[in-house]
Amino acid sequence: MNLSDYRVSKKFKLSGISTDDTGKLERDRAERETAEIGAKLTELQDRLYAESQQSLLVVLQARDAGGKDGTVKHVFEPVNPQGIIVTNFKVPNEEDLKHDFLWRIHPHTPAAGMIAVFNRSHYEDVLVTRVHNIIDDQEAERRFGYIRNFETLLASRGTRILKLYLHISAEEQRSRLQDRLDNPEKNWKFNPADLKERGKWDEYTRAYEAALSATSTDAAPWYVIPADHKWYRNRVISQLLLDTLSDMNPQFPKPEFDLTNVTVGAI
Amino acid sequence: MNLSDYRVSKKFKLSGISTDDTGKLERDRAERETAEIGAKLTELQDRLYAESQQSLLVVLQARDAGGKDGTVKHVFEPVNPQGIIVTNFKVPNEEDLKHDFLWRIHPHTPAAGMIAVFNRSHYEDVLVTRVHNIIDDQEAERRFGYIRNFETLLASRGTRILKLYLHISAEEQRSRLQDRLDNPEKNWKFNPADLKERGKWDEYTRAYEAALSATSTDAAPWYVIPADHKWYRNRVISQLLLDTLSDMNPQFPKPEFDLTNVTVGAI
Repeated sequence: MNLSDYRVSKKFKLSGISTDDTGKLERDRAERETAEIGAKLTELQDRLYAESQQSLLVVLQARDAGGKDGTVKHVFEPVNPQGIIVTNFKVPNEEDLKHDFLWRIHPHTPAAGMIAVFNRSHYEDVLVTRVHNIIDDQEAERRFGYIRNFETLLASRGTRILKLYLHISAEEQRSRLQDRLDNPEKNWKFNPADLKERGKWDEYTRAYEAALSATSTDAAPWYVIPADHKWYRNRVISQLLLDTLSDMNPQFPKPEFDLTNVTVGAI
Repeated sequence: MNLSDYRVSKKFKLSGISTDDTGKLERDRAERETAEIGAKLTELQDRLYAESQQSLLVVLQARDAGGKDGTVKHVFEPVNPQGIIVTNFKVPNEEDLKHDFLWRIHPHTPAAGMIAVFNRSHYEDVLVTRVHNIIDDQEAERRFGYIRNFETLLASRGTRILKLYLHISAEEQRSRLQDRLDNPEKNWKFNPADLKERGKWDEYTRAYEAALSATSTDAAPWYVIPADHKWYRNRVISQLLLDTLSDMNPQFPKPEFDLTNVTVGAI
């Protein structure tokens, strides 16, 4: 498993990365390793929270049934809920639309010490909008620029940004959507509108390729995560988180006060 | 372990509940049971989130080093971070103080489908303020009324409210604060101001007794959780969460659309 293989460069094509890659790992081993990494993430996040100087923003994008919810559930479960906030971005509401497209995003960026996860994000505004011709190519290009500037601003205040596209095949999406139809406990997740979006598979491919290559920067890189196999997806994302948090290297802070000779007396 | 023993009634005294109660449980067994309950909480919260009709608000109050952070970490870890938001309420800022004391609280109450945990809460405004004579008894009584009305409003929109006072002894607090001094990784948690508050032990006892008995209602009961033993504290709180969520009995929703004869085609 070489993570740099999954990093988005200027001229990349989604077809260049296999949706069913398993990095030559077996499932059992991958799951064991994900659990081991989980314990390390717990510890690193403890330090991140205590230090309260840096923060981490994880952006999750995917096609419908791509595994965003499952990623949040399985990869971020070891993390103390006190130190993480997950925001689901839905279709912009009437008030949102009275503002620039980053207005509704900014309040949810992570404070120092925190991890923020965006389940969908400002990238919807250069994906759905583009596929549905709500914005034209020129506007998309302008928005790529706004996004790069916005993410640079976040980075300037100590926020590390990790952007993940969960990469599934058309066949895997078919199987997962069909499962929502067949499994009564999943019926509520099925939305007929998803089938319409599914029909625009190739348009989404092009929109993703354009958006990801235009906004994958050193400050905020995009990774394309092979996601047909959930266990491999979890393994790769856990590793990315571990590498990122290790590199951030948060430290328990020094006490703000001189604690020499302080003792706690009885009452 | 009879949970009703810990529920706050009109005329209760903190001294009536032992801080080191263990409900005749052994530590090993309690920890095993807490883990088993955790798995059930995961499932119930899945349903709560999917149903998106009801919500749960857990209010945590305690003296310094009472175990609020540890409770969040250990009891709520099994919960999918997507469905839970923990809010830490600090000292009100300048803007907060330009509003009524519930203004800064209201935005953080849980949306349908969510669990919200308040690590400290609006109760600080009838505790710290009272011990430090920032408000008098009449104002405290008025605030108890505002709080009861506010919590009734939340309940009217489907929010279940569980309020927990983590009950530790003066000796246990001494030991935990001393540990923050002795353990370099915990130094950052030590604040000399905590010693000043500790000196007002009895005043806090009276303020807690007044606040809890005045605001423990059917819609939003207070429980006093014996918390000298963290493993017992976790066991009791897990059970309360399980009983509450089981009683709420959230259900996976019916699909909004007629799914008969829908299939997902190939691309």
